[in-house]
Amino acid sequence: MSPALSRRAAAEALGSFFLFATVIGSGIMAERLASGNVAVALMGNTVATGAMLFALIGWLGPISGAHLNPAVSLVAAFRRELSGRDLVPYLLAQLGGGIVGVITANLMFDMPAIAVATKVRGGPGQWLGEAVATFGLILTILGTVRYRERHVPAAVALYIVAAYWFTSSTSFANPAITVARSLSDSFAGISPGSVPLFIVAQLLGAAAAAWVAKGLIDRDR
Amino acid sequence: MSPALSRRAAAEALGSFFLFATVIGSGIMAERLASGNVAVALMGNTVATGAMLFALIGWLGPISGAHLNPAVSLVAAFRRELSGRDLVPYLLAQLGGGIVGVITANLMFDMPAIAVATKVRGGPGQWLGEAVATFGLILTILGTVRYRERHVPAAVALYIVAAYWFTSSTSFANPAITVARSLSDSFAGISPGSVPLFIVAQLLGAAAAAWVAKGLIDRDR
Amino acid sequence: MSPALSRRAAAEALGSFFLFATVIGSGIMAERLASGNVAVALMGNTVATGAMLFALIGWLGPISGAHLNPAVSLVAAFRRELSGRDLVPYLLAQLGGGIVGVITANLMFDMPAIAVATKVRGGPGQWLGEAVATFGLILTILGTVRYRERHVPAAVALYIVAAYWFTSSTSFANPAITVARSLSDSFAGISPGSVPLFIVAQLLGAAAAAWVAKGLIDRDR
Amino acid sequence: MSPALSRRAAAEALGSFFLFATVIGSGIMAERLASGNVAVALMGNTVATGAMLFALIGWLGPISGAHLNPAVSLVAAFRRELSGRDLVPYLLAQLGGGIVGVITANLMFDMPAIAVATKVRGGPGQWLGEAVATFGLILTILGTVRYRERHVPAAVALYIVAAYWFTSSTSFANPAITVARSLSDSFAGISPGSVPLFIVAQLLGAAAAAWVAKGLIDRDR
Repeated sequence: MSPALSRRAAAEALGSFFLFATVIGSGIMAERLASGNVAVALMGNTVATGAMLFALIGWLGPISGAHLNPAVSLVAAFRRELSGRDLVPYLLAQLGGGIVGVITANLMFDMPAIAVATKVRGGPGQWLGEAVATFGLILTILGTVRYRERHVPAAVALYIVAAYWFTSSTSFANPAITVARSLSDSFAGISPGSVPLFIVAQLLGAAAAAWVAKGLIDRDR
Repeated sequence: MSPALSRRAAAEALGSFFLFATVIGSGIMAERLASGNVAVALMGNTVATGAMLFALIGWLGPISGAHLNPAVSLVAAFRRELSGRDLVPYLLAQLGGGIVGVITANLMFDMPAIAVATKVRGGPGQWLGEAVATFGLILTILGTVRYRERHVPAAVALYIVAAYWFTSSTSFANPAITVARSLSDSFAGISPGSVPLFIVAQLLGAAAAAWVAKGLIDRDR
Repeated sequence: MSPALSRRAAAEALGSFFLFATVIGSGIMAERLASGNVAVALMGNTVATGAMLFALIGWLGPISGAHLNPAVSLVAAFRRELSGRDLVPYLLAQLGGGIVGVITANLMFDMPAIAVATKVRGGPGQWLGEAVATFGLILTILGTVRYRERHVPAAVALYIVAAYWFTSSTSFANPAITVARSLSDSFAGISPGSVPLFIVAQLLGAAAAAWVAKGLIDRDR
Repeated sequence: MSPALSRRAAAEALGSFFLFATVIGSGIMAERLASGNVAVALMGNTVATGAMLFALIGWLGPISGAHLNPAVSLVAAFRRELSGRDLVPYLLAQLGGGIVGVITANLMFDMPAIAVATKVRGGPGQWLGEAVATFGLILTILGTVRYRERHVPAAVALYIVAAYWFTSSTSFANPAITVARSLSDSFAGISPGSVPLFIVAQLLGAAAAAWVAKGLIDRDR
C-alpha cells in the first residue's frame, strides 16, 4: 500500500475501533444501569452512538471519508468515488479495527474478550427494517455531501439516532458492525446465525439508495 | 408534470416517507420498551423525530424546500413562494409518501399494514395546543429562512422537539401527518373522528402565523 | 414608541410567550407522564426548554437581540448596548408576553388560566444556585457574542440545559420567568413568597458577570 | 505573570469552575431525582456535562484554548503549542478553579463544602477505560483542530457524551477533575485511593494519542 492509502486505511480502522467500541460498550453500560427499562437503555446506546459518530466524522472525513461502513464504501466504489484498488483495504480496516473495538469494549466491562452473541434477530419486519435503515443512511450521506457538505457529521449522526428508534431492528445498517456485534454477548449483540440475512437486507437497501440517488441527486450536478 | 416538478415532488414524497415512518415507528418502539413510563416513551419518540427532521431538511431543502407538511406548502403558496400549479403535487406527494411511510412502519413492527387508530384526541386544550404549535412552527420557518438560513434544519427540528412536550396534543402541527397517523393503531395514532378538528386548529394557527409574519418579518425586507 | 421599537418589543413578547409556555407546558407534560421519576420529568423539561431557546434565538436575535430575560436587558443597558429609552418596553414585553405564555400553557393542559403556585423554593443553597446560574448565563452570552457570534443560539440553549441540572434550583436565571412561574401551580411553579429572593440572587449574579466581563472579555476589544 | 497570561489562566480557572461544578452538581441532582434508575441519573449527568462543555469551549477557546484539562495542556506543551512557561499556571488554574467549582456544587446542594468521596473505582477494565477515553479525547481535539476547527466545541462535547457511556469508568479523562471529584461524596465522586491509577491510565492514553497524532494528523500539514 502507498503511504497515503495506509494513512486512509488507518483512519478507517481507528474510526471503526471507536464507533464499534461505543456501540457495544454503551449497550453494556446502558443495560446494566437501566433497571430493566429497555427504552432507557436504548436511549443511552443511541445518544452515545450518535455523539461518537459526530465526533469521528468531522475529522476523519477529510482524511478517509470516514465511511466506517462497508455498505458506504461499496456504494462509493460503485459510484467511482473510491477506486477499486482501495476498496479491499477499506473493508479490511473497517472490520479489523471494529473487531478490536468490540474486544476492547468487552474487556473494559470485565467480560470475556470475545463471546459469541446469543441474541437471535430476524423475521420479515426486522429485515425490512435493515433495508429501509440502510436505504436512508446512504441517501442521507449522498444527499448531504451534495447539498450541504458542512452538515455531514451532524446529519449522519442524527440519521442513525433516528434509525435506532424507528426500525424494529434498532438499525445496524452496517455489514461490518453486524459481524462485529456477533462477538459480544450483550445488549447490542446478534447471534451469528442472524448475521447473513441482516447483511443481505442492508446491501439491498444500499443498492436501492444508489439507484434512487442517480435520479434524485446526481441529475442536478 | 415537468421533470423538475416531478423531482421536487419525489423529494417531498421521500422525505414524508421517512418522517412519517419515524414518527410512527419510534412511537411503537418507544411504547414497547418503556415499561409503562410514558415520559420515557415520549422522549424516544421526540429524539427520533427531531433527529430525522434535521437529517432530511438539510439535503431535501435545496431540492424541494423540504416542506413535508401541507400547512407549510399552503403558507408558501399564499406568500407566492410556491406556484399555485405546484401546490397540489406537493400535497399529494406529502400525503402519499407519508402513508407509505406509516404502512412501512407498521410492517417493520409486524403489525397490520393499516389499522385504524383508536386513540381519541381532542378538547379545547388540545385544539389550542395544535393551533399554537402550528403558529410557532410556521413563524420559526419563516423567521429562520429570513434571518439565519443555515440554521433552518436545526431550528425546525428543535422547534418540533420542544413542541412535542409543551403542547397538550404532543404537537402534530401537520395536516398530512394527522391523516396518516390515523392509519396506525399505536402510540402516535389518532382516531379518524379526531382528525378534522385537529386540522382546523392547525390551519388557523398557520393563518395567524402568516399574518404575524407580514408585520414582524417581511417588513424588514 | 417608534415602529422600529414596537417591532423589537413585539419580538421580545413573542419570544417570551413561546419560551415561558415551553417551560411551564413541558413541565406539566413531563410530570404527568413520568410515573413519579422526577429525573425523567426534569429531562423532558430540559430538552424542551433548550430546544425552544435554540429555535427562538436564531431568528429573534437579529430583530431584538432575543434577550427574553430582564437580567440580560439590564446588563445590556448597563453596557450601553441597549438604550435606556428601550429598557422599559423590553422589560414589559418580556413580562407581558411571558405571562400570556404561562396562561396559554395552563389552558392547553385544561388547568385554570392562572393558579398561584404553591411550591416553596429557597434556602442558601438555592439562592447560591440562582446567583451562579445567572452569572454563567450572562458570561456565556457576552463571551459568545464577542468570540463566536454564530454559536449564540446553541451556546445559550445548551448553557441553560446544563444549568437545569447543575444548580439545586434548576436554574430559573431570569426575573421575568420567576414572576411568571408563580402563576402556574405545576412542576415548574414557584410560590410568590419565594420570588423576591430568587430575583435578588439573579441580579447579584448578573452584576458579578458584568464586572468579570469587563476584565476577561472587553479588555480584548 | 504577564497580564495576557493572567487573563488566559483566569479563563482556564473560570471554565474549570463551571465544568467541574456541572459534573458534580448534575451528578447530585440526577441521583437524587432518578428513583434508583442509575441509567437515568447517568443521562442527566451526561447531558449537563456535554452541554456545558459546548457552552464553555466556544468562547473560552479563543482566549485560552479552553483546555480545562491537564492532559490536554501537557500534550499541548509537548507539541510546543503551549509554552513551557505557561504550563504550570494552566495546571494550577484548572485545579484551583475546578476545586472551587466542586465546593460550590456541594454548597448549592446543602452538602458539606468538602467531603472525601468514598466511591472506590478501579480494576483493569476501568483503567483500560480511562486510557481509551483519554486517547480518544486527545485525538478528537487534535484532529478536529486540524481539519474542522469550527466543530471543536461540538466535537469535544459530544466525544465526552459518548465516553460517559462506552467506558466502564464513565470516562473521567482529566487528571484535575479526577482529583477534584475526590472532594464530593456523591454520584460523580471517587475515593482518593482510586485517584493515582486513574491519572496514570489517563496519561498513558494521552501519550499514545500524541504519538498516533504524529503519523495520522501532523503528516498532512
